[in-house]
Order: sequence, then structure tokens, then C-alpha cells
Amino acid sequence: MDELLTPEAAEAAFYRAFEGADLDAMMGVWADDEAIACIHPMGQMLRGTADVREAWRQLFAGNQRMHFHIRPQQHRSDGNLAIHTVIQSIYLHGEAEPRPPIVATNVYRRTEQGWRMILHHASPSVIDAKGGEAQQTEPTAPLH
Amino acid sequence: MDELLTPEAAEAAFYRAFEGADLDAMMGVWADDEAIACIHPMGQMLRGTADVREAWRQLFAGNQRMHFHIRPQQHRSDGNLAIHTVIQSIYLHGEAEPRPPIVATNVYRRTEQGWRMILHHASPSVIDAKGGEAQQTEPTAPLH
Repeated sequence: MDELLTPEAAEAAFYRAFEGADLDAMMGVWADDEAIACIHPMGQMLRGTADVREAWRQLFAGNQRMHFHIRPQQHRSDGNLAIHTVIQSIYLHGEAEPRPPIVATNVYRRTEQGWRMILHHASPSVIDAKGGEAQQTEPTAPLH
Repeated sequence: MDELLTPEAAEAAFYRAFEGADLDAMMGVWADDEAIACIHPMGQMLRGTADVREAWRQLFAGNQRMHFHIRPQQHRSDGNLAIHTVIQSIYLHGEAEPRPPIVATNVYRRTEQGWRMILHHASPSVIDAKGGEAQQTEPTAPLH
């Protein structure tokens, strides 16, 4: 695995591994740290290397080729932390239009081995923001 | 507004303002910064003070009293940044059981006025993590 000298290099490696469905490359982007956390859209929070790896393994086993278009939104870094919030447009193989956008907050930490991911929090972003948390609590929310 | 001397104080003030539906207190927690970003569950990304404020105003206008139980998950801080990922259990007034959990990543930045929120990324977390981003791309996803 290349040395990840910047948060941007780590982010590029993350999406490259994701597109390539390359489990070892994916886990090489993550810090080797039981405190890592990964939240796939509509998924539970996964903690630690074993659970995070297993979820990626299952996702990649689906064998669905994806292409990502990433639009950076908010980038902040200080000290040994960098936070990137991006909008992910995912194109499935054979489809011209992307799927509904996903918002992801990706957090990277500088380690002795370079920058590594410690958090991937991804969630659907498809409806107007009006309502927010209150809307989530409606009985008609599509989440029950 | 109290001085927010730590990220923890900022987080407590954030949920206090949320429970109290107190718009001025809520905006007092946020950095006065066009780069702030707020993502309510299933909502679009909101950027900048005006849009973030307007969404909270609408949410609070719903007049639904909420009580929060917050379970910290991943906390990291370095330099002038702190990242807290928490699970929010929201109780509506008159209901004994909480609504389905919300995962929130809250990012705070140390400013000259103390610690202030720069990102609130909240999303539903209700189903098993299997599938993840791939699941999101299924035609049957509840997001179309």
C-alpha cells in the first residue's frame, strides 16, 4: 500500500479501494485501532477492525461494480485530525444516472504509518431538509 | 450564553438547546462561520449560518417536545478540533419508548469564543449493517 502522506491521499485510496472492491486495500486505509467506527447508510455503527472488515467483505461480495463521483463539501484539519464531509454520487455499472446521493463524513488521523481513516459515517441525503430530526420521529417515517 | 470551555460543554449546550427548542441558544453553540454544515436525518446538507438557522427554526416550530438520551461512541480530539460520534435516543413527550436511534457525528472547533459546533451529521441507524452502501443502491431502497 502506498504511504498515505495526506488526508487527501487517504481519501483517494479509500474510494479507489471501494470502487475496486479490494478488501485488503480498504482495510489498509483504516487505522489499525479498535476505536475505528464505520456507519454505512441506514446501518448500525460498527466498531473495531474485525467488524468493520467483515461489513466491507460482505459489501464487496455483492459483486456490484460501482463508480464514485465525490464532491467535497466541508474540509477541516488541525493537528493530527482531518475531517472531510463529501457528497458521494454512486454510479452502478451499466447505469447512466447516479443513485440518490449519499453524504459521508470521513475522519482521518495521522499515525506513524501516515494518514488513516478512523470514521466513515455515510447516510442517505435525498429529501428536502425541512423537518429534520422531527421528521424522523413521524410515524410515517420510512424507517420502521 | 455560557462560555463553552470544552467540546463536552459545547455538546451539552447543543442538546440542551435542542431539548428546549431554543433557537438562539442553538445558534449560540454553532461557530459563526459560513463553512458550518448541518445534516438532519434524511436531509440535504445545509451550509452556512442562515440555512442552518432556518432549518432549526422550522424544526423547533413543530413544537414537538423531545428528550434526548445520548450515548457517546467515538470521541477524538487534537489541536483545535474535536469529533464526537454519539447515538441519540429521542423520546417524544408522552411516549415511554424512544424512537429508532439516530447516529450523529458532531464536530467542534476551538474558536476565540470557546468551542463551537461546525458539523452536525445525523442519520437513522435502524437496520442491520449488512449491505451497507450496496444496499442503498437496491431499487427497493426506501429512498426513491
